[in-house]
Amino acid sequence: MKKFILIPDSFKGTMSSEEICGIMESAIRKTEPDAEILSIPVADGGEGTVDAFLSAVGGEKRTIPVKGPLFEETSAFYGVIDEGTTAVIEMAACAGLPLIGERRDPIRATTYGVGELIRHAIEHGCKKIILGLGGSATNDGGAGAAAALGVRFLNQEGNPFVPTGGTLCEITKIDCSQCLPALQDTEVIAMCDIDNPLCGPAGAAAVFGPQKGASPEIVPLLDEGLSHLSKVIARDVGLQLSDLPGAGAAGGMGCGAVAFFGARLQMGIETVLDTVRFDSLLPGTDLVFSGEGKIDTQSIRGKVVIGIAKRTQKAGVPLAAIVGDIGDEITDAYRMGVSGIFSINRVAVPFAEAKPRAKQDLFLTVDNIMRFLHTMQAH
Amino acid sequence: MKKFILIPDSFKGTMSSEEICGIMESAIRKTEPDAEILSIPVADGGEGTVDAFLSAVGGEKRTIPVKGPLFEETSAFYGVIDEGTTAVIEMAACAGLPLIGERRDPIRATTYGVGELIRHAIEHGCKKIILGLGGSATNDGGAGAAAALGVRFLNQEGNPFVPTGGTLCEITKIDCSQCLPALQDTEVIAMCDIDNPLCGPAGAAAVFGPQKGASPEIVPLLDEGLSHLSKVIARDVGLQLSDLPGAGAAGGMGCGAVAFFGARLQMGIETVLDTVRFDSLLPGTDLVFSGEGKIDTQSIRGKVVIGIAKRTQKAGVPLAAIVGDIGDEITDAYRMGVSGIFSINRVAVPFAEAKPRAKQDLFLTVDNIMRFLHTMQAH
Repeated sequence: MKKFILIPDSFKGTMSSEEICGIMESAIRKTEPDAEILSIPVADGGEGTVDAFLSAVGGEKRTIPVKGPLFEETSAFYGVIDEGTTAVIEMAACAGLPLIGERRDPIRATTYGVGELIRHAIEHGCKKIILGLGGSATNDGGAGAAAALGVRFLNQEGNPFVPTGGTLCEITKIDCSQCLPALQDTEVIAMCDIDNPLCGPAGAAAVFGPQKGASPEIVPLLDEGLSHLSKVIARDVGLQLSDLPGAGAAGGMGCGAVAFFGARLQMGIETVLDTVRFDSLLPGTDLVFSGEGKIDTQSIRGKVVIGIAKRTQKAGVPLAAIVGDIGDEITDAYRMGVSGIFSINRVAVPFAEAKPRAKQDLFLTVDNIMRFLHTMQAH
Repeated sequence: MKKFILIPDSFKGTMSSEEICGIMESAIRKTEPDAEILSIPVADGGEGTVDAFLSAVGGEKRTIPVKGPLFEETSAFYGVIDEGTTAVIEMAACAGLPLIGERRDPIRATTYGVGELIRHAIEHGCKKIILGLGGSATNDGGAGAAAALGVRFLNQEGNPFVPTGGTLCEITKIDCSQCLPALQDTEVIAMCDIDNPLCGPAGAAAVFGPQKGASPEIVPLLDEGLSHLSKVIARDVGLQLSDLPGAGAAGGMGCGAVAFFGARLQMGIETVLDTVRFDSLLPGTDLVFSGEGKIDTQSIRGKVVIGIAKRTQKAGVPLAAIVGDIGDEITDAYRMGVSGIFSINRVAVPFAEAKPRAKQDLFLTVDNIMRFLHTMQAH
């Protein structure tokens, strides 16, 4: 019996990672009906991250009442894997853009609910938190989440408040003394595929503020708030985070996660591979199928295929990358461990025509590879 | 050491078969520098057919004085292979459209020179003629070529003349008694990938006349001439050819070749495969690479890849088809013996953008397959 592992990234806007796994599996089964096929949909930290982890390793989903992105009462979920010891939280579940529709307001939006999810997970036995940064509606530097876990942000009058994007400048002191004690013993990993620093022209407000509803006049205000927050963190928490790559992820949640939860920022694909214990799945595997919307080696950071290739190469297992487009100068990808790169493009048509046929073309591409390998191996 | 056979069709308008062989070979050598690689550029009967055969099996090129398409004195070549016993003649060499430029005139154009090439070949020891139909400027039903070999076409006054497209109707009798005797013992194969009958709406004049310069008023005249020719052939030669598929190839040369030279009309790819003794090359071959501009199984006739697949499948040798576009519903191609079908399209762009990068994309596609197979086989 043959063994295959399917671990594709989504083709953004075209097919989810789960869909791709399903299509690949049915294509493989045409040639190898009895194969052992492991499907690992790749989470990227945004919406769908919890479901992807649960689908890959199994576990349960917990739904609890929390505050939504505008402090409204709502409910949100997180996943529990590894026999209840690890929580997977996607901040999009309670601080995500889709939750607020037209009411986008990065001045007032909060990550408070994210802190409530973390608190619930810790109070119910989780020793490790995987926190997906992505799809956020907020620009509060994670202060809301920290407040929910007991961090006190004091204003000029010495009164505690829950800062949001528009009120970060009012923080005069940060007091972590009443923070949930168990947080100290909790390992927090924040999935983060971007490099942006907290503030400045490449920072959270400037780059991601507009898509969250920040007008050109508002962006500098939000940026100033994050800058102020980092100064107070430096003074009161003792961490210099203003230049940390990834601190600007999710409206500064990257910074807050490090400052208040002791989080480690880690690329999503590495987090997935560690969590599913990918290396232990490789022995006996005939071929790993991965893929992503476009492969290139110019911007390797966060790239799923290259992250996987490092591990398959080490284990000596072949890796086929099934992609939408193949960028120029991808020879390095082979050196990094990709065995073959196959575009699903079968006809010379522009993307608008290629997109609606992508699922069918993906199926046919994998089917073709399987048929070809079958013949080559029979020869 | 590995053994590969390269036998691609041209990508019409983008890459010649010779160019494709060269690109494929250099891509294969990146992974398998010491491989045995046989290149067989596929001739289609048109311009370049002689060079393709010479490149595939070796031989010599003979250039002799002949009459050109408008009876002008010119020179043309043919190829000699198989130790001087087989001649390869492309009628385009002395009756081709490119030779007459703007002077297109299917009423007056002649295949006389083609007959001179055949005569020269037979008189110099060739026992077999491979005649490439394609790219012709003529509509004379092959009467000119026949006249050059001694066939006498008589007019109302009983005088012999050399009929052309505009004077076929003047033939009252065909006399083959003074035809070159050795023609009887010569095997003539006419390479012909089209199905068109001699006359009527799908005939030579109606379908191909316009591109040879026939105005809408002229087409019926040419069609009538071919129709008349077929009636006289039926009466004087005893062959009913008006409905023969392929009789309408090359301005009716398909008909004339059968009637006057006892030719067999055969698909180009079959002729190539027989001539290079393809079946005898297959034992010990690891992989055959073929290809064509577009693969589909709707219109199989004349398709290079499918023609090759029948033979590789019988020999149990894998066949990879490298193509421009992959048509819909190509599952039959696998059943017919194609092991894998790979499009060179790497990005979703329209053909106008894909064409200038085709050579590079072909190289990268073959390179990728070789790398992939190398890893799979090492595993």
